[in-house]
Amino acid sequence: MAVDQFFLFLAVILIAARLFSEVAVRHGIPPVIGELLAGLMVGPSLLGWVTPDETMKLLAEIGIILLLFEVGMDTDLYRLARSGTKPIVVAMVGFVAPFVLGYLVCYYLFDLSNIVSLFIGGTLTATSIGITVRVLDDLKRRQSDEAQIVIGAAVLDDILGVLTLAFLYQFAEQKQVSLAATGEVAIYIILFMVLSPFAAKLVGRVIERFSHTASTPGLLLTMALSLILLFSWLAHAVGAPVIMGGFAAGVALSQHFHLTFKASKSVFTARVQHKLTEWFAPSSELHHALETQMRPLIHTFAPLFFVMVGVSLNFNTVDWSSGFVWQLGGLLLLVAFIGKLAAGFFIKEPRANQIAIGLAMIPRGEVGLIFAQLGLAQGILDISLYAALLLVIALTTLAPPFLMKVFYVRYLPEA
Amino acid sequence: MAVDQFFLFLAVILIAARLFSEVAVRHGIPPVIGELLAGLMVGPSLLGWVTPDETMKLLAEIGIILLLFEVGMDTDLYRLARSGTKPIVVAMVGFVAPFVLGYLVCYYLFDLSNIVSLFIGGTLTATSIGITVRVLDDLKRRQSDEAQIVIGAAVLDDILGVLTLAFLYQFAEQKQVSLAATGEVAIYIILFMVLSPFAAKLVGRVIERFSHTASTPGLLLTMALSLILLFSWLAHAVGAPVIMGGFAAGVALSQHFHLTFKASKSVFTARVQHKLTEWFAPSSELHHALETQMRPLIHTFAPLFFVMVGVSLNFNTVDWSSGFVWQLGGLLLLVAFIGKLAAGFFIKEPRANQIAIGLAMIPRGEVGLIFAQLGLAQGILDISLYAALLLVIALTTLAPPFLMKVFYVRYLPEA
Repeated sequence: MAVDQFFLFLAVILIAARLFSEVAVRHGIPPVIGELLAGLMVGPSLLGWVTPDETMKLLAEIGIILLLFEVGMDTDLYRLARSGTKPIVVAMVGFVAPFVLGYLVCYYLFDLSNIVSLFIGGTLTATSIGITVRVLDDLKRRQSDEAQIVIGAAVLDDILGVLTLAFLYQFAEQKQVSLAATGEVAIYIILFMVLSPFAAKLVGRVIERFSHTASTPGLLLTMALSLILLFSWLAHAVGAPVIMGGFAAGVALSQHFHLTFKASKSVFTARVQHKLTEWFAPSSELHHALETQMRPLIHTFAPLFFVMVGVSLNFNTVDWSSGFVWQLGGLLLLVAFIGKLAAGFFIKEPRANQIAIGLAMIPRGEVGLIFAQLGLAQGILDISLYAALLLVIALTTLAPPFLMKVFYVRYLPEA
Repeated sequence: MAVDQFFLFLAVILIAARLFSEVAVRHGIPPVIGELLAGLMVGPSLLGWVTPDETMKLLAEIGIILLLFEVGMDTDLYRLARSGTKPIVVAMVGFVAPFVLGYLVCYYLFDLSNIVSLFIGGTLTATSIGITVRVLDDLKRRQSDEAQIVIGAAVLDDILGVLTLAFLYQFAEQKQVSLAATGEVAIYIILFMVLSPFAAKLVGRVIERFSHTASTPGLLLTMALSLILLFSWLAHAVGAPVIMGGFAAGVALSQHFHLTFKASKSVFTARVQHKLTEWFAPSSELHHALETQMRPLIHTFAPLFFVMVGVSLNFNTVDWSSGFVWQLGGLLLLVAFIGKLAAGFFIKEPRANQIAIGLAMIPRGEVGLIFAQLGLAQGILDISLYAALLLVIALTTLAPPFLMKVFYVRYLPEA
């Protein structure tokens, strides 16, 4: 892409995102819907000004990892731990229910093959953590109890999604699966989840120390950014979703990340504990500096992500006259809604919270798109199956922000 | 490029830039040298970790237009106007002297063809405004009188460079040139230079107004960024260098940009004058908000630009055993230094200022590289001619920051 065209694309995306989200907010619509619609508008679905170009997609990826970094910075692991098994239950039900229901619909009602039915079921398991978080943000509810459960569940869901994709991919290629290989990836991911915040914290501590004696300006910001990029790369290297890297780095540098020990009687152990507690003590100075300096970058890059999701939803590929597309799409849509909504009812929470949690898990967004596009590219899905999935992804992405807003205003007004 | 590789590249570049510039500063070396060396190190010249990839180059371009935006914001047009014809004289001499001397060396001493000699002469006229500005910045002298002259001259030089390139390109393609076509481009560029600050100011005023009633955060920043991108695109569209767009947008939104009129006796004219003065009055609020919010973006993107200049200087393409490369390279290097140094002596300034101005005009940087790479791609230059130019570009880029630092400390210590 020529540099002038790149500048024009970027300006068009930024302006459209801003314009649509501004108009949306003034009409009581969540701004993320404005950004998704901006993408549909300037993308190939309508005007065709912007194409899903590689460079733009890479910039959008910076947007989503920075957003997840911010989410991580606001995540209180101890509070998350207090919600106990709830996020795990929500993630598991929200994974199994759409998978099984989707498989059954495809295999028995539409006579699709085993691998195709599995792949479509897998696509329906996706949860777009980016869109979920943005809606909770827009509603100013990211700190609520149910939001903590949803974020925990969405992170787990992303991991389950990556494992499913690896599994199905292998199955499609070799017509058989090795549970050992999938298990190995799962172990790497769990190791990454457990160890990376500690590693990121250590690096963060070093950065903080150097930032006090730096002779060039902006050290803190560029080093923190490098940390996020490196951990995202590392996440991908161990087989986890890249956004896990941003999230882990955010958790590590958050104000809530610290160590607590039971008091020990041994003098040596007590000293080690003291040292460790000191090392891992959160630094509100670092936290504050990062928040203020990171914000302009997040404001610039995050909208790129949501607009590019809209740009990637190319409605022109759908054969709107096909009855098959509408029938399959309609049934899968139902499955996609019910499967995730059900997740909320398997945990002990007030009824309103159960529904809010279920609604928040519905958006498939870019995660579903990645599944569907891979299926098309691999020849597992034909164009009409892809179209049906596109319909499901578009509606599960665009409807929940509205539904959540209406539901929150009515049943969970701010305390 | 895969997303994980992109993250890794970006992190490596950011960390290397920071590390090298930090070490440079602690040894009294200008940080920009650190960033250029970081590029040589991680690029194909040494480690080969980062290749001059398209996406990275586009991100680097954002860096340079943002840097020129910042320069524009700090530029006082009235003060620039007070330096009168000085920047014009410096730009003209700094253009003609290396061109003619370079041509003579190639044509008479090395028996090169007419078009090749012209092209090499043209390459020697380049001035890298980015590197010049950074060095003045590093020395904390961007606001000095001689810096104003240098910045004005460097901007003019960039325009002359683009015209020369268009001219030589046409000559190489069609074996004849149309002065009319070049003249047309020149007129467009002059129109852009004169009109764009007013247009940018009007847009800036609209942005400012909306930013007060915005319902979504970060409007000011993303809209200002869009403005810079759009004006850079527009600059390219009229045939001017893209950086002119960033510069024009910066000038328009600077605290110094305002209109003054002679008092008019006509009531109507006086009223129009009053309205215009009001509209074009600088807003220190907008200026301050832009400065603080733009800084994190500049700190992130600008080093990318300088590192990518280093990455693009691939020393492995040079046949170091060739006597021809060393002879031609050596003579052209002499011409490149003398030609620009001479420029300072054609204006009335204290001797020290004359030398400082001449030194500041020497860096060829990315502008010279673009010339040389185009010549190679078009088959005008063979690999040994390209190698000789690469040598000239590398040394004229790396030496002046040192020379300027030493010169300033010794002969122009801070007032």
